[in-house]
Amino acid sequence: MNDKLKPRDVLIETASRLFMLRGYCGVGLNDIIEESGIPKGSLYHYFPEGKEQLAIAAIDNTKTLVMEDIKAVFDGRSNLIEALQQYVYQLSRAFGEGGDPIGSPIGTIAREKHSTSEPICLACEATFNDWQAVYTQKFLQSGYAKEQATSLATVFHALTEGGILLALTMKSGKPLEAIAAQIPSLFAKELGEKYQFS
Amino acid sequence: MNDKLKPRDVLIETASRLFMLRGYCGVGLNDIIEESGIPKGSLYHYFPEGKEQLAIAAIDNTKTLVMEDIKAVFDGRSNLIEALQQYVYQLSRAFGEGGDPIGSPIGTIAREKHSTSEPICLACEATFNDWQAVYTQKFLQSGYAKEQATSLATVFHALTEGGILLALTMKSGKPLEAIAAQIPSLFAKELGEKYQFS
Repeated sequence: MNDKLKPRDVLIETASRLFMLRGYCGVGLNDIIEESGIPKGSLYHYFPEGKEQLAIAAIDNTKTLVMEDIKAVFDGRSNLIEALQQYVYQLSRAFGEGGDPIGSPIGTIAREKHSTSEPICLACEATFNDWQAVYTQKFLQSGYAKEQATSLATVFHALTEGGILLALTMKSGKPLEAIAAQIPSLFAKELGEKYQFS
Repeated sequence: MNDKLKPRDVLIETASRLFMLRGYCGVGLNDIIEESGIPKGSLYHYFPEGKEQLAIAAIDNTKTLVMEDIKAVFDGRSNLIEALQQYVYQLSRAFGEGGDPIGSPIGTIAREKHSTSEPICLACEATFNDWQAVYTQKFLQSGYAKEQATSLATVFHALTEGGILLALTMKSGKPLEAIAAQIPSLFAKELGEKYQFS
């Protein structure tokens, strides 16, 4: 079974990396075939609808991997600030110099909004909504009222996505490290004031 | 003089929009010629080195336009929180539904890091550094010590870039509105504690 799944996984991994590096428009199926070493027939066996289907599989795969990462950090930490901070430090290692975040095509694909198809846009939206739901849950568990928890989840999500863009641009983990170091002062006040909102 | 500058400006504007929508790899010079209506000979007159030179001009143009936007909001507001908040509200209008942020190719180009050239990467880095310098200056003017001002400028920059990505993905200004609404509670504590850092 595993042997049967392997080429599919290789295709998804290759597609994820190429889409992240070049964007959806900048990658052709031939690039994916060449880079992965998987023959064309095999690609069409797993993804009969071609590039769009493969992009959606890459987005869904990233969604799952990142969700696992977030949960692994969050589940072991009941303290909200510590959980948020550790997750951003983890991103700084993944996206900093020498990091190889191969499974993160979403930010690049999501920006090219007009040229990508509706199903791809919906997959990106669903991914962001699912991640934010986990963040919201964490704020809720820490005693925030629903509306405030949702807003702070958006803030935290924007911080991670923006931090990743800065890290990729600066080729350094430092922007994400700076963000992680500020997490206590950014969100601690909220904790102290939570009863104002609940 | 203005007549002479026009085709160059049209080329930069068209290139900016296309690079934002499709990424650097997803845009060819022929797309820019077709979309702008400017003849090929004219493009090579203004940008003899072709696509890379045009991309750098588009990045530099965005740098200048965004810098003017930031300064217009900041210069009229001595209150730090109000200035940061108003700038994010402005972004929510520009990048929300119905907005047409034609001059913002940097986020898309900056992500495609391995496929774009070193001069393009440097132009993106310089842009981010310049914007962050303005944010840092605003935090400094509000009484923060240098190190803390620099870190908070990184946080604010990440919030704007991440918020833009969420707005583009969700096709809505709501994520940026939520961020703007949280600015006072995120940064107000810092102000109260500034003497701890200075």
